[in-house]
Amino acid sequence: MKKILVAVDGSRHSDKALKAVKDLLRLNDSLAITVLYVIDIPNNVLAHQAGEISPAVFEEQARINAETVLARARDFFRIDGFEVQTLSKYGHPATVICKVAEYEGYDMIVVGSRGLGAVKGLFMGSISSKVAHLAPCPVLIVK
Amino acid sequence: MKKILVAVDGSRHSDKALKAVKDLLRLNDSLAITVLYVIDIPNNVLAHQAGEISPAVFEEQARINAETVLARARDFFRIDGFEVQTLSKYGHPATVICKVAEYEGYDMIVVGSRGLGAVKGLFMGSISSKVAHLAPCPVLIVK
Repeated sequence: MKKILVAVDGSRHSDKALKAVKDLLRLNDSLAITVLYVIDIPNNVLAHQAGEISPAVFEEQARINAETVLARARDFFRIDGFEVQTLSKYGHPATVICKVAEYEGYDMIVVGSRGLGAVKGLFMGSISSKVAHLAPCPVLIVK
Repeated sequence: MKKILVAVDGSRHSDKALKAVKDLLRLNDSLAITVLYVIDIPNNVLAHQAGEISPAVFEEQARINAETVLARARDFFRIDGFEVQTLSKYGHPATVICKVAEYEGYDMIVVGSRGLGAVKGLFMGSISSKVAHLAPCPVLIVK
């Protein structure tokens, strides 16, 4: 277990995922950590088509939001002296997370049990359960 | 992250869960590992009611099977110099796993993505998805 991919979306459960990864780093600081934010433009644009924001403006806002969440993640690790890589990608979150893990040979994926988009009371966040289904490696689901 | 509970049923995915835990132990050998086998008597007895084996005989066979799987798990760790605790309990697997984790303050649960009972092609093993839903702590689902 060397390379860990932690997916974030800025939600409370994704903060808990970052905390779990920091706990793993405290056990072994040679782990290589990548924090991934997937910008889910198609879904978000569809959701906002009825609104007043144009897709281009929305895409720019989503990109800024991704950068903000990733910068916060870097700071969260840096405060304890850990350096992590960050990465943002466009696409369907579960698919992108699993493809990155597969193509770049990650040993473990860490996700929050529910993300921003999940409806409270659902059996599990759809993203975390899809990741657990599609992943090429062990998946740590953080509650 | 100090105490890890790994649930086994003797299946190929549960062997992979043990391997993932050994990888974690290699990162940090101060982790306390408990290997748990849950003997699901009610379901098993129901499944065998139509057969020739009496519930009492079946229960005894299930207990022997649990001991065999747990002894194999101990050997799997011991061969690399690691000592682990083993534990068997009766009940519904997901419920028992989560209750043990909660009452005994485990920091992480590790389960295989599919157990012996799961039908191939199901979205995920029903036990691993129930554990991910009910767990009081992070759950590592091993593929």
